[in-house]
Amino acid sequence: MPQPTLLLTGFEPFGGEAVNPSWEAVRVLDGESIVGHRVVAVRLPVVFGRSLEVLREALRAHRPTLTICVGQAGGRPRISLERVAINLDDARIPDNEGRQPIDSPVDPHGPPAHFATLPIKAILAALTDAGIPAEVSNSAGTYVCNHVFYGLMQALDDGMRGGFVHIPYSPEQAARHPGAPGLPVAMASEALRIALRTTLATREDLRVQAGAEH
Amino acid sequence: MPQPTLLLTGFEPFGGEAVNPSWEAVRVLDGESIVGHRVVAVRLPVVFGRSLEVLREALRAHRPTLTICVGQAGGRPRISLERVAINLDDARIPDNEGRQPIDSPVDPHGPPAHFATLPIKAILAALTDAGIPAEVSNSAGTYVCNHVFYGLMQALDDGMRGGFVHIPYSPEQAARHPGAPGLPVAMASEALRIALRTTLATREDLRVQAGAEH
Amino acid sequence: MPQPTLLLTGFEPFGGEAVNPSWEAVRVLDGESIVGHRVVAVRLPVVFGRSLEVLREALRAHRPTLTICVGQAGGRPRISLERVAINLDDARIPDNEGRQPIDSPVDPHGPPAHFATLPIKAILAALTDAGIPAEVSNSAGTYVCNHVFYGLMQALDDGMRGGFVHIPYSPEQAARHPGAPGLPVAMASEALRIALRTTLATREDLRVQAGAEH
Amino acid sequence: MPQPTLLLTGFEPFGGEAVNPSWEAVRVLDGESIVGHRVVAVRLPVVFGRSLEVLREALRAHRPTLTICVGQAGGRPRISLERVAINLDDARIPDNEGRQPIDSPVDPHGPPAHFATLPIKAILAALTDAGIPAEVSNSAGTYVCNHVFYGLMQALDDGMRGGFVHIPYSPEQAARHPGAPGLPVAMASEALRIALRTTLATREDLRVQAGAEH
Repeated sequence: MPQPTLLLTGFEPFGGEAVNPSWEAVRVLDGESIVGHRVVAVRLPVVFGRSLEVLREALRAHRPTLTICVGQAGGRPRISLERVAINLDDARIPDNEGRQPIDSPVDPHGPPAHFATLPIKAILAALTDAGIPAEVSNSAGTYVCNHVFYGLMQALDDGMRGGFVHIPYSPEQAARHPGAPGLPVAMASEALRIALRTTLATREDLRVQAGAEH
Repeated sequence: MPQPTLLLTGFEPFGGEAVNPSWEAVRVLDGESIVGHRVVAVRLPVVFGRSLEVLREALRAHRPTLTICVGQAGGRPRISLERVAINLDDARIPDNEGRQPIDSPVDPHGPPAHFATLPIKAILAALTDAGIPAEVSNSAGTYVCNHVFYGLMQALDDGMRGGFVHIPYSPEQAARHPGAPGLPVAMASEALRIALRTTLATREDLRVQAGAEH
Repeated sequence: MPQPTLLLTGFEPFGGEAVNPSWEAVRVLDGESIVGHRVVAVRLPVVFGRSLEVLREALRAHRPTLTICVGQAGGRPRISLERVAINLDDARIPDNEGRQPIDSPVDPHGPPAHFATLPIKAILAALTDAGIPAEVSNSAGTYVCNHVFYGLMQALDDGMRGGFVHIPYSPEQAARHPGAPGLPVAMASEALRIALRTTLATREDLRVQAGAEH
Repeated sequence: MPQPTLLLTGFEPFGGEAVNPSWEAVRVLDGESIVGHRVVAVRLPVVFGRSLEVLREALRAHRPTLTICVGQAGGRPRISLERVAINLDDARIPDNEGRQPIDSPVDPHGPPAHFATLPIKAILAALTDAGIPAEVSNSAGTYVCNHVFYGLMQALDDGMRGGFVHIPYSPEQAARHPGAPGLPVAMASEALRIALRTTLATREDLRVQAGAEH
């Protein structure tokens, strides 16, 4: 019987960057074994629509127990555990194929939002214990990251868990963006390992606050 | 035949503040006439649950065509036009009656989120033209503001429009919070007047981007 | 005998802006009487060198008891009371005549820095009491503002006091700069009135901390 | 003939922290050889006055060609190359022996400020090339870091070069400070190695802008 699978996705570069730290962080985990599961890493295009086709194809091919999609959040200082995906595309800049949807739904037949089914409070606690700066985020934006996050949650079958994690620029990227913080890609990879392991070990999330007044 | 009504709500103070600029901004509009509608201002308690009872009572009493709930976003620099309310309470600090829900739904039978039914792009453009710093926000947090916003959208009948606006500290508050920006309450009131007027005049929202990559 | 004079300077617009709030805030005070002194407002060009010629001419003409130069700090949220001017020009962008000095002294014969001779702690306390968000700043940058501040302190004779105040964008400017805070020009004018009045009334500054670890 | 010496100093922890990343970053370089020079690392107390005694003792003992003092800047996202030390102590919080000077000079007989004698533009370029996020800073604050920076520049004899570098929280510290960025200590150590090597190799600093309008 084949090993159960954990799916990680990262993105190709966009917005003029030469690399995307989400793919760099994810691809080194490809083939790793985590608590009896095998990690599969897949790279998604930064394109509305097509990113979801590639994702759905990967979900069909690997039937993962657990999927975490990962994206770059240039300017954010910490690992962001996304809480919610909204059914909305509103692109500030065109995607890698020049599409720029404005205020259209990801899925016209879908619900207004999906919550991640990761134990984000337990992951936050585990990352903090591991000395990795992290936070819960209540918005994944309205670009391809949110699009993929929403489409993922829409595509998951019963019993498959999933969510989205934003990571900062790599130090190399940040060095060329005045004022921006950077986080080493190896630290992002380790954060993802911890997120996978914690999710596999957690049935009910911790009941601790990580809320925001606004 | 009575004049149609526009409902504005603000909050009582919380978190150790002596005033809440949302109520200060709203109460001066009480009784004003805007494009043939009469404004009614109602003050809500910063309390999970009870805030929604007061809001629903006001909706029943006034049957407003249009409702905008307003809250304080201490630390934010601009008028925030909230795009989406999520079905989640996660309180970082206790409310004014000591309740602190963690990861519970606003309404266990409600959808995961509601989008505002205000033309937020048109309002953003009108505020920019009027010289008032504003922005679209993709998260109203997970505290009483989001709770009220979600409950409002849940309570509105067909044909009633509604949404939520966050406003910064008043200058007087900001003066005592190192580093925080302040916005005059009179400017917040004017922003709300413009938001009401723009909504009444707008059937279809503008198709302009105000998105975020993350 | 003529009334003693208080000199306020503001700048012309730069960096693509149509107005400079420092001049807007200052010019409305021109001719006002404050505790038996007459306010004179002078507009300076945003040009290395020539700004100081205009300033020195105004100092000769008016022999002010007290001078406050005012500049725009786009992006800062509060009134900034500058503590220190450094003997250095390092221009990120060219000035209004295309000059862009890099790491050259304001005055090759001057000391490395000058401290303002305003009672900045007393002014901070008075602004806070008046409900105007303010702060002490330990750097006026390395552009024309610092250049003028340094040149002012260099030019003042014994017994003449002086300093520099940075003010945020006006709300109208901020409305067109995503994410930036705005402060009404009338509030900046009132802050300057308070700064002048407080300085005239204060011989020894308050001994209260307004320091920064870094 | 003994090897010439490079002196690095870091600080003990303060402000409730268990470690100070400045000492962690510096101590691993102790004894390293850099372009024919031997690195000596010394730990300074976070105490006004006594920190300078320890520093001056180290300068006497080692007669370093080049000295870089390093401090923690919790909340800053990048390596900060400090440009200027000012002759002022203004402590927001007491030091580790409970002293809290307010608006007193570091040295009543010293000049108002000292500029670092490091080639900070060349160091910034080298760090950027190495993929380490860095920036020039125009204020080292008014606490023990600035105090030590000023005292260092005051103590250096002709031909001895020196300056100050602020580093962010370590990731482990940042993990416990909501919202703060972290930088791995090993990356800070590497940045210091590059700063030392670049300074030794640079006689005249690069003429490139790294200025700030305010």
